[in-house]
Amino acid sequence: MNMAVIGIGLIGGSMVKDLRKTNYIGKVFGVDLNPVHSKEALRSGLVDEIVALDVALAKADLIIISIPVDSAKHVVLDILENIDKTQIVTDVGSTKGGICEVVKNHKMRGRFVAGHPIAGTENSGPEAAIEGLFQNKTGIICNKNESDSDALIVVENVYKLLGMNLNYMDADEHDKHIAYVSHLSHISSFALALTVLNIEESEKNIFDMAGSGFSSTVRLAKSSPDMWKPIFQHNSAYLERALDEYIDQLHDFKTFLKHNKQEDIHMLMTKANDIRRILDGKVKEENKNTIEHEKAT
Amino acid sequence: MNMAVIGIGLIGGSMVKDLRKTNYIGKVFGVDLNPVHSKEALRSGLVDEIVALDVALAKADLIIISIPVDSAKHVVLDILENIDKTQIVTDVGSTKGGICEVVKNHKMRGRFVAGHPIAGTENSGPEAAIEGLFQNKTGIICNKNESDSDALIVVENVYKLLGMNLNYMDADEHDKHIAYVSHLSHISSFALALTVLNIEESEKNIFDMAGSGFSSTVRLAKSSPDMWKPIFQHNSAYLERALDEYIDQLHDFKTFLKHNKQEDIHMLMTKANDIRRILDGKVKEENKNTIEHEKAT
Repeated sequence: MNMAVIGIGLIGGSMVKDLRKTNYIGKVFGVDLNPVHSKEALRSGLVDEIVALDVALAKADLIIISIPVDSAKHVVLDILENIDKTQIVTDVGSTKGGICEVVKNHKMRGRFVAGHPIAGTENSGPEAAIEGLFQNKTGIICNKNESDSDALIVVENVYKLLGMNLNYMDADEHDKHIAYVSHLSHISSFALALTVLNIEESEKNIFDMAGSGFSSTVRLAKSSPDMWKPIFQHNSAYLERALDEYIDQLHDFKTFLKHNKQEDIHMLMTKANDIRRILDGKVKEENKNTIEHEKAT
Repeated sequence: MNMAVIGIGLIGGSMVKDLRKTNYIGKVFGVDLNPVHSKEALRSGLVDEIVALDVALAKADLIIISIPVDSAKHVVLDILENIDKTQIVTDVGSTKGGICEVVKNHKMRGRFVAGHPIAGTENSGPEAAIEGLFQNKTGIICNKNESDSDALIVVENVYKLLGMNLNYMDADEHDKHIAYVSHLSHISSFALALTVLNIEESEKNIFDMAGSGFSSTVRLAKSSPDMWKPIFQHNSAYLERALDEYIDQLHDFKTFLKHNKQEDIHMLMTKANDIRRILDGKVKEENKNTIEHEKAT
């Protein structure tokens, strides 16, 4: 099957890299408004041809929208207006409520599968595309009952070929949970970079004293503002709630520090340590059951 | 030269691993109050013998204190009381003001070299010791003029053998800068873990939705509370200042989100992106000069 990638960057490009190794896809058509990215995508063989959107829609069986979430909301409608019932459209955006809302009542809604492959790096553009990015990561499909079953199967197959574990959620639930688990950590990282840049006069000190700890905590602060601005905007309600909670936690640390409450600080850190168990996959059974149930419904 | 390691954990153990590969050290004596750590350090060959402190002091030429900074402040005095003018003591603590203060007027002050090899992982104990931990990292020596020159040379050689780049600072300056660049990022990470643990009901969601982004931002939240409690206590004044600035930055994000100030959020992220340049080592020249000057004085 022929594929069109609308926006050939880190995510779209990395998908192509791994899918090229399978027999699942044929020709890859790239659509990108950025001439530098277009040229690079052609040069590196990520795409076979750079074409205009209408040409891509005339030639591709599977269309992947991998552009910032605000633009995706407009482009998805253009695409649904111009495809037929055999073609399949999916997106990779980090917020799902907005795009699911705009397509909700479209006559071609069934051809669209709302996806979120949870993977990435702090880099962007076609040069950032890497092999194996999605291996063992989670691929979330939202509002799956609104998609035609043949379209759903194709996107599920693509996710499986990329090595992802499939998960299904309601779009609004997705946005809430991803605000807490992913979007907040981007803000915490951007704010950490700004703090250190403001407070530490010497750039050389930052470079010298940044052990691997600071580097990993601040890594996401290198992420693309063009990509993250609309994500934060789409998800501002849940993100504000997460930020409130985060600021509360920081205030607790500050208060305990100020009043030399050593045991309270120790207790906070011991509680925080529990994240290791969860990230190691040792989640509590009752939680597992809740999710299995959600999946089944 | 024979070596004693007081506290055989991540840092002391990793030092031994790499120094064993050189001809620079002979026998390694371990002192550790934790019987499980002692046994593991012997079993894995990190140390040749587990001994009491007085035995270690009788046999070792170089004594490395690698225990939490509050205990180190006491142990260093015990050690200085019981060594002779040929022996050398150094520490690896992440705060330097406290330990430099307690030894300041000691008649054996010259035998002590206040060190901070800026390296680590989120793990602790002798099993966490790894090879190459210090390669290309910064090793800071504080208040070097208070150390005897022969003692200083030995510790400098050890740092160089471990692959570190040497840097020199005043102890109080060290504590200020390390609060901003390292200690704050530990608090930001602990608080992030607590936020997600509090706000996200489903542990399975955390596991599934934690892309590599969240994992790297929250990694330091797995760190040892026993090690970090006294560091935060020693450095609370600078850390409070850093936390204030950090909370201010987060409030800016929150306010801009609330009032849909998209361009302001974009501007904050673009400023934060500058951390990439600095971590890549492309520091501005005027800053470089400032530091070279500090080094020379």
